Order: sequence, then structure tokens, then C-alpha cells
Amino acid sequence: MRFPSSIKLLIEELKRLPGIGEKNAQRLAFHLLGASTERAQALASALVKMKETIRHCDRCFNLTEDEFCEVCLDPSRSGGLLCVVQSPRDLLAIEGTGQFRGRYHVLMGVLSPMRGVGPEDLKVNQLLERVRDEKVTEVIVATNLDVEGEATASYLMTALGSMDVKISRIARGIPIGGSLEQADSLTLGLAIDGRLELQGPF
Amino acid sequence: MRFPSSIKLLIEELKRLPGIGEKNAQRLAFHLLGASTERAQALASALVKMKETIRHCDRCFNLTEDEFCEVCLDPSRSGGLLCVVQSPRDLLAIEGTGQFRGRYHVLMGVLSPMRGVGPEDLKVNQLLERVRDEKVTEVIVATNLDVEGEATASYLMTALGSMDVKISRIARGIPIGGSLEQADSLTLGLAIDGRLELQGPF
Repeated sequence: MRFPSSIKLLIEELKRLPGIGEKNAQRLAFHLLGASTERAQALASALVKMKETIRHCDRCFNLTEDEFCEVCLDPSRSGGLLCVVQSPRDLLAIEGTGQFRGRYHVLMGVLSPMRGVGPEDLKVNQLLERVRDEKVTEVIVATNLDVEGEATASYLMTALGSMDVKISRIARGIPIGGSLEQADSLTLGLAIDGRLELQGPF
Repeated sequence: MRFPSSIKLLIEELKRLPGIGEKNAQRLAFHLLGASTERAQALASALVKMKETIRHCDRCFNLTEDEFCEVCLDPSRSGGLLCVVQSPRDLLAIEGTGQFRGRYHVLMGVLSPMRGVGPEDLKVNQLLERVRDEKVTEVIVATNLDVEGEATASYLMTALGSMDVKISRIARGIPIGGSLEQADSLTLGLAIDGRLELQGPF
């Protein structure tokens, strides 16, 4: 005998999720079969509700359930400091540090000639408008440190070059807990270039 | 800022699934956020539909969407041979071998004094009734080879002892591809005890 069709269907849907293979999908399906109907309903409705309510902030393209996101609506945030990120997940990662009190701009991707993504596919024009209209004093470019992220950063530097705004890039270097021995030579070179003067007394 | 509440809720629900931690739940939630509404709806409705339609077979307690399961309804199956398993998943595992053409009886658990599971919590009485009523000639006890599975097998041997039926237990031994060196001594001892005579010519 095969799986009853409704279990098979659920397994097929679970398998579409990233990192979930056949065995794992079966395990999850049987777990949900054994769980209370309330739990299964709660998961299904949480999923539908999220899809219905989540949208992008009209100003910075962060995730929100309203017109503007929590960060844009927070009056204690400095509007002069704007951090440019690729995705809302990166924004949440930076928020997780609790270190940044400025505002954000989510590009919704990176430049990628390989995948046919150009500046017009990203929220670049909206960024330029905001820098012009919102009295931004510094733009921190926090795209990834990979090829596409660096190319995007480079493009933004040029695009923002003519404007009266300071442009910075997140620091490249050895991660905390990392060893020099295991760092690649490019990172190590950049870490030496970007060295910071230590202030005594020690 | 924190996650918007509807994403947070979905992450919480996903985290209740086995083997899904915080990071993994976030990853899945963001994947679903990026997926089409149709895909998310399909997953949600597959889940609800499964919970609504799946029930246990009235005879053998296998999973089914009808009164009786596919195996019980299959006239080509031998009713004389009854394989006793702990769960529908074990039944599906045996079906996966394609080797067994008898019927099944799902106990819906194993005896476990530690967890307070006694014979009355399992489908033991229903098994005894079936053996009596369905002209069963052999009962294969295919509970797990762990302490609880063995205790359950032992209990069933006693319970079925007075009936005119052959009782067998699935073979214990070295798995295919396994090495004797790595087998535990209990398994190896049982594998020697349960040796089978090879039939020539080779």
C-alpha cells in the first residue's frame, strides 16, 4: 500500500521547503498527524495570516503589517544615518545587534548580471530620493561581502557620489573568535589595511 | 525592531515541529514569505485536509481515508498471515519492502510501564479477537528490537499462547552491509543462534 493521498499531498508540499527532503517531510507529516487538530490548524492559519498581512514598508521596504514599518515610525531613530541592506532578513540581523539607532533602506536584492538583475530591479531610485529628501548625512552600505554585494556597493558609491553625503561600508576583517591562520589572505589583507589605532591607557 | 507579529507567530508554530529550531524556523518562515501565495495556501490546506480526512482502519488501525484501509480491502492479501506492528509508519516501512503479502495489525504503541502504557492502552484485545475470528494461522510480531518492543512481543506471546496459532518474531541479526566487528555482542550472539542452513548447490 502507498501513503493515503492526503498524507502524500502534505509530504509533497513539505518537500518544497528548503532543506526538507523525503524522509524529513514524512517525519513532519506524521508528527502533524499525531498532533492535536488545534496545533495543526494553528500552523496552517499562522501561515495564511502571514501571507495576508505582511507587506513592505512604503518608505524603506522593510517588512511590516502597516503602511510604514516599526523602525520608520520610531521617532527616537536618527534619520540622518541610513543603513542600506539587501533584504529584510539582513535588517533584522543588524537590529539583533542592538547597536544601530539609525534608519534602513532595503534594496530588495543585489545587482547580478548573471541573473539579469539591474539597478532598475532594485530600490535604488527610492534610495537616491530618500538621501535627497530626508537630510541623510551618512549612508552605510551593508550589502554582503561577496562578489554581488561588493559590486552593488560599488555601484551605490558611484550613484551617491555626486550627493552631499558621507558613504561608508561595513568593516571587513577577522570575525570575533576567528583565527588568523584560518582566514583567507584577502580578508587578512583587508583587516590589516583597515586597522584601528588602539587608544591607551591600557 | 522585532519580527512583525504574524511572522513571529508562524516562527513559533514552526518551532513546535520536531527537529526545527529557531534559526531553521526563521529560514522556513522567510522562504514561505517569499513563496507565491498559491504555494503557501497549498501547504496550509494540505495540512488541514490531512487532519480532516485521515483516520484509522476499523479493522487493523492502519491509516486510511475510509472505513477500512487499502491492505484490508485488498482481496489478494492472505488473511491467514498477520503482522503486528507498533505504528502505521512501521507498517509503511514493511510495505516498502514489497515482501509481505499478508495483513497487519497496528498496536498503536508499545507497553511501557515507565510511561504508564499498559495492554489496555494498546489494540491488544482487538488483536486477540481478530486471531480468533479471522482464521489467522501465523502472527508475526514486528515490534521494535528495543526494550519496550521486546517486552511487548513477550507479552503478546503469552497472550496468544493458548490460541491455536503460530507465533513468530522478525529475525534479529547483522544488517545488510553491516560488519561483524561493529555489531554489539548481543546482536552477534542472536545472529549466530538464529543461523540459517545454506542450501546448495552453490
